[in-house]
This record gives sequence, structure tokens and C-alpha cells, in this order.
Amino acid sequence: MDAAEFRRRGKEMVDYVADYLENIEKRQVYPDVEPGYLRSLIPEEAPEEAESYEDVFKDIERVIMPGVTHWHSPYFYAYFPTANSFPAMLADMLCGAIGCIGFSWAASPACTELETVMLDWLGKMLKLPEDFLAGTEGRGGGVIQGTASEATLIALLAARSKIVKLIQADHPDRSETHIISKLVAYSSDQAHSSVERAGLIGGLRMKKIPTDNKFSVRGDALQKVLEEDRATGLIPFFFCATLGTTPSCAFDCVTELGPICNAEKIWMHIDAAYAGSAFICPEFRPLLNGIEFADSFNFNPHKWLLVNFDCSHSSYVISHLISLQHWQIPLGRRFRSLKIWFVFRMYGLKGLQHVGLAKEFESLVRADQRFEISADVVLGLVCFRLKGSNELNETLLKRINNARKIHLVPCQLAGKFVLRFAVCARTTESRHVQEAWCHISHLASELLQELPH
Amino acid sequence: MDAAEFRRRGKEMVDYVADYLENIEKRQVYPDVEPGYLRSLIPEEAPEEAESYEDVFKDIERVIMPGVTHWHSPYFYAYFPTANSFPAMLADMLCGAIGCIGFSWAASPACTELETVMLDWLGKMLKLPEDFLAGTEGRGGGVIQGTASEATLIALLAARSKIVKLIQADHPDRSETHIISKLVAYSSDQAHSSVERAGLIGGLRMKKIPTDNKFSVRGDALQKVLEEDRATGLIPFFFCATLGTTPSCAFDCVTELGPICNAEKIWMHIDAAYAGSAFICPEFRPLLNGIEFADSFNFNPHKWLLVNFDCSHSSYVISHLISLQHWQIPLGRRFRSLKIWFVFRMYGLKGLQHVGLAKEFESLVRADQRFEISADVVLGLVCFRLKGSNELNETLLKRINNARKIHLVPCQLAGKFVLRFAVCARTTESRHVQEAWCHISHLASELLQELPH
Repeated sequence: MDAAEFRRRGKEMVDYVADYLENIEKRQVYPDVEPGYLRSLIPEEAPEEAESYEDVFKDIERVIMPGVTHWHSPYFYAYFPTANSFPAMLADMLCGAIGCIGFSWAASPACTELETVMLDWLGKMLKLPEDFLAGTEGRGGGVIQGTASEATLIALLAARSKIVKLIQADHPDRSETHIISKLVAYSSDQAHSSVERAGLIGGLRMKKIPTDNKFSVRGDALQKVLEEDRATGLIPFFFCATLGTTPSCAFDCVTELGPICNAEKIWMHIDAAYAGSAFICPEFRPLLNGIEFADSFNFNPHKWLLVNFDCSHSSYVISHLISLQHWQIPLGRRFRSLKIWFVFRMYGLKGLQHVGLAKEFESLVRADQRFEISADVVLGLVCFRLKGSNELNETLLKRINNARKIHLVPCQLAGKFVLRFAVCARTTESRHVQEAWCHISHLASELLQELPH
Repeated sequence: MDAAEFRRRGKEMVDYVADYLENIEKRQVYPDVEPGYLRSLIPEEAPEEAESYEDVFKDIERVIMPGVTHWHSPYFYAYFPTANSFPAMLADMLCGAIGCIGFSWAASPACTELETVMLDWLGKMLKLPEDFLAGTEGRGGGVIQGTASEATLIALLAARSKIVKLIQADHPDRSETHIISKLVAYSSDQAHSSVERAGLIGGLRMKKIPTDNKFSVRGDALQKVLEEDRATGLIPFFFCATLGTTPSCAFDCVTELGPICNAEKIWMHIDAAYAGSAFICPEFRPLLNGIEFADSFNFNPHKWLLVNFDCSHSSYVISHLISLQHWQIPLGRRFRSLKIWFVFRMYGLKGLQHVGLAKEFESLVRADQRFEISADVVLGLVCFRLKGSNELNETLLKRINNARKIHLVPCQLAGKFVLRFAVCARTTESRHVQEAWCHISHLASELLQELPH
């Protein structure tokens, strides 16, 4: 394919993409396929000879689309949102064309520098403390990670490295291996599985702190475990606080936890993967109070800030990172800051400060006596269930997903099976939420009628 | 920006991308900017109000391009190639539009399934042993990693986990911490820095095996270190072989090393990040002999196989991975297999089997008595230098890069400062290589004339 053909095919693809997103409502949000469906639809080996573009293009609808879960459909309420916007897609086209690998400044100065400045823009939008900004001679700074999983791992490794140096400064005779064998890291019992996995990867002991009835870690709960662990000779060194947990969007109480961590010389990392984007709104910024006690902070603009995946923002207080040469696992990097730049300029801060429809869905649930709300609704997630057994709710969810009209996933909260309704697509409107509720309510009525009285 | 505007702007961007790549020769390959250049060119904060697309678009040439190192210029001979092709860019546009996060089968079945089948296509193109293929009920399989760094880390962690289980099966009293403190992993002294870093991240001891005069690790060198280490009570568990080292594209002798690793129950990982793509050519496939002894294998189609970054291919013998739930660091994943699918079909296997111009450059160097070739030229990399001091060669490289006509980076080989000439851009032709040589030769003449006789 030469440049002339790319001009033609590229423009066709732009139209295909626009058509896809404009008409996404008409596609079934969750596919009908069974595992293994795709293998039989395409050859077992790559072709010897080149095929025509027409054949490849036709296969998008024949092979790919029947197996796609449409995350940008206004009927998609599963997991958490992943962002998608036209400016971000334009920036990604440019990123692909430049196609540089930004592993050092010289490898492409613009790639490194735009990233630094964009993460300062983000930091200022979130009103992060000065320590987290690069500025021209700052003490901190941000970096784009692929995902929050990587960000947590890097923070954990930096903390490990810091505590080993700290202890060895006082006790030069203690080996690194010995110190590491005594370390213990903590997170909420509601924390994302990637936090536990970071511990596994780093070969580090990790414990879960029990949460209160709002699914938040409180200061006294952490303090209790710290005392127990110190008494047995363990060395607490890392706490991962979650702002906006995956099951219920709960918030650990960092204003209580931060001072404890600081006093006990424990690295506090804040994982706000989902909720972080909301902190650009003045009304939600108080949820980030306590950030001043943290050593590192991460959130995913690719969830809510209209910046296409992958784009996870990590900020560090740089003086805490001296021992870690690199702030990321991979060496090479794409020019991902371009999409932040395009999106922020094309929307402006005001254009990004919107959070809304979850409260509307919550009201609908609360107005129906058969249902209960299972956790505080703070941002875009509603956790709800039928009053009754877990089995009943499992059946309801199965029927909702089998009907293929909308797509939800469940969570467990305090032993209860709970349905999660996450407002996801940029194009979700009030009418979609109303329609989703009518559908759920109707399926619930059918289910309850079938039950013996 | 709505879909209608995206249709217009997207088509303009397609033309901009085509123009950029068609005329890339006319741009200076390496930028003139100094560190910090970009910050002063843009505002310190994100705008409150949305800006016009015209303003954003104009800033590509004003802000970004002056700081870009043009990796796809035919005058770029630094590092190793990174791929870029029109079909891959079309696939990336589609990937952005679908915008799914493929962390599980249900999250988007097509995303998981196409990846499995594409990595089988790749495995068959490389004639990997059956054990590395997923098939319909295979024992192995591939996964797309972002970079080779991640692939090495995952292999190392899997090996760590396997050896701990193996030892604990015989000695249930030994703690994981104790076992890990005795482990030792190995790589070539020519291995990429990411291998050493994987050891740091995993908290694992790592040693470098000395190479022979061809910069290859041989069986006897490994055997010697193994014996020494076992004698002191260490437990060897992992060897990372490199096929195509970063400094000189040397090949560790895996037909000697593999049987040793198998006999000693050491996990052998093969890192063929750069060279791997060449193994699709029958004439280069013998370089991969010995793969049958390996537990895991990785190479980067994003280097040579026209698949845009990031796309690193890892294959594992799955039965060796039982203990590691996930094959990657990040949880979320983009739909990266689309670009493999587009590229392989649009080029066909025959269209991808081209390796050439480095030999032409080698002949030019060999025909000039003032120069010497510093390592065997096997694929697309020529390591060369002026006969004489390191200082002389450092000066030559400085002048080459300061002239901004072409861009090279150096390496150290056996204490010598060496210039690396890597054929990188898809559009590099014989005339560019000839021109590059004339330029280097001319600068060398100038330099040598200045020297006192």
C-alpha cells in the first residue's frame, strides 16, 4: 500500500469509524459468540501472497464485529468507562505516523517534553500539591503509564528500594534479602486485584486492611495492623490507598491514613484510577484531600477524561524516587501525550467537567421498594440489588445479560451479590438510563412473579 | 467535535500523515532543539474554554515537529528500526474506534481471539515448535506485550515461581523467601539493559556470562559459572539468551546452551527482540535453531515486521506457566492484533521477507582501508569504526550527528568505541545508503586531514 492508496483507504476508514460510533446504539451491546468462534472464520496461516484491501476491509464486519463488546454503546454499563473521543483519535493517527520510540530525550525530544508539560497541566487541573509537578525545576513530576497496574507496581518497587536504603544506612550489616523478607505492604480489602499482583511480582508480603461499613479503610484499622505487625518483627513500608474502589467506588480516608503513614515512614500511594478524573470538578476535589501526605498518585485519564486507552497518569514526589532510574516497566514509549494535548484543547477544562447520570439512576432505584442501594453513590457508579437472596440477584443479572439489551457486571459487597450500574459511554443520555431502568424493572417483575409466595 | 467534524478533520489528518511520510526525506532527521524547548511554546495550563481545531492543528508544525527525531526518515540509522506501515495505521484507527479494554474474554471476545490466532500465524511463520502454539488445544501460545522488557520480566517471574514450587515439593520446610535469596539468573554480558532491570524489579540476583570473540555466550562459559555458583550454594534457575544483541547483533549459541539449561532445570528464555523478525526468511531461520530447548521466546514485530509500535510477541510453553495467572504486567489491553492481521494480509509472507541493504553498506566500509568492521554483519546492522583510537571515533560520530544529515548512535565492543549503522526506515533505498556512506567518508577525510602526521 503506497501513500496514494493510504489517502483513499484512510478516508474510507475515517468514515467507517464515524459511522460505527454514530450508529453504535443499533448494534447489540454484547456479542452472541461462543469461545473459539473466530478461529474457524479465518485461515490457519498467514497468506503467502498479498491480499486486496477490499477483502481485509470486508472481514471487519464478517469476523471482528460479531465478537466485539461495544464499550462505547450507551447500553454498556459494565466495569468502568474507557474513554473515546474524536480529538484523541486524531492525535493517535498523528502518533502512529511519527512512530517514534521515546525511551530517552534524544530519541524524540518532543515526545518527552510534551508528556512532562501535559502531566503538569493535569496536575494543575487536579490541584495536586506543588511537589507533584515538574515545572522547570520541580521536585516531582508525572509520567504516562499504560495502566494503573503498572503505576502501582512502580510505586511499590520505589518504596521497597527506599526502605532498604533507609535501613541499611543505620544498619550496614543487614542484607537486602534479609530486609525484604521482613517487609510488609498494605491495601484496602476492596483494592483492585492488580495491587495484590504487584506484591506477587515484587516478591513482597502484602496484607489487606479491613474496611468499615462504607467500604473505606479508616486510620484506626491501619494503626491496629501496624502495631500487630511491628510487634512480630515485620517492617511496614507501603500503603496503597484507593480513592474510588472498583466494586463500589468507596474512598479510603486518606486524611486519617496519611498522617499515620508519614509518622511511621510508610510510603503512601494513592490509586484513584477511576475517580481521579472527577477531581477536576471543584465539587469533587475535596475527595482528594489528604493527597499532601502521599508519595505517589495515579489515575486513568483513559477512563473518564476522553483520552483513549492507554493513558494512565502517575505523579511522584521525585525526591522519593532517587533510587529508581526509570519510572516505568517498558523502555520504549509511544507519543501518548499528543492525545491529552488534543483533548484538553478541543474540550477546554469546562468541557470536561461533567458528571451526572448516575444520580438519576439512583433516584429510579430508590423509588422502587423492591430494590436497595448497596453503597453511597458518589460519582458515576450505582451499586444496587433486589432486596432478597444472592441467588435471586444472580438470576436477575443473568437474565439482564442474556437479554443482550444492556450489559452489566456484578460485585460482592459484604458478602452480598450486587449489580453494578456504571455510566460509561460519552454518548449516554438520560433517555438511555431511563430505558435501562425500565428494562431492569420489567425483568425484575417477571422474575418476582415466578417465585412461590 | 462531533462525528461530522471528525469526518472532515480525520480526512485532513490522513492527508497530513501521508504528506509527512511521503516527504520525510526533506525534514532534518535529528532536531536542533535544546532540552526544555517545548515548555515555553505552549501555555502553562490547560485552557478553560475549548480552542478551535485549526489552532491545535497549526501547532503540530510549530510545537511538535521541530522537536521530533524522524525515525522513519531514510537518513535515520540509529538504535534499531521501529516499524511503520499504512495497513498498520489503518488497523490502529479501527482499534481506537472500537476502544475496548481486553482484560478478559467477555470484555471483548474478538480482541482475545484474534490475538491468539495472530500469534499462531506468527509462530508458524517462524516455524516455532508446536509447544509454542495455542492451536485449538495446544500446550502453549503467544501474547502481545508492549515491549521486550515486559516479556523478559514475565519470563523471569514465571521461572522464579516455578523453581520455588519445585524446591518446596521436595523440601516443604524451606520458605519462599529463603529459596529466593539463593536464586541466581544469567544473561550474556551483551544483553540489553532491560534484562538486568528485570532482575532488579523481581528482587533477584543476576549475573552476566562473558562472551567469546564473536560476542556470543557459549556453552562452556555458562557451564563454568554454573559450577562455581552451585559450589557456593546458589540455585541457578534462569538464563536469558539473546539472539541479535543490541550492540552488535550477536547470537548466543542456543544449540549449546539449551541442552545445558534443560539438564540443569534452568528456564531458558530467548530474547530475539530485533532479530526475530528475520527468522521468517528461510535463509535466516537456522539462527533460531535451539528454540526447541527454550521455555519462552520473545521478539518485536514492531521493529521489523511493519507492525507499528507497540507490538512485542511472546510465546510460552504454557505448561511451564501454570503458576502465573497472567502473562503480562498491565491488566487492560488494546486491540493490538488488528494491526498484525492487516499487515500480514496486505503484504503476504512474501512481501515481508526482505533483508538487504546492510550488506551493501558493509561492502562500502570494507572497500575503505581507513575503516574496520567490528562485528559480523548478519542482518541489518553494521558495526564499524576508523582504525585508530576511541577518541578519534568519538569525534567522527560527533561530527556526523552535528552535521544533522544522518543520525547514528555508538556502542562499546570489547572496550572499543564503535559506530552502529542500522538500516531502519522502510523507505531506505540503496541511494540513501550510498549517500550516507559518502557523507561519513567525507567527514572522516576531513577529520584525518586535521590530525598531525
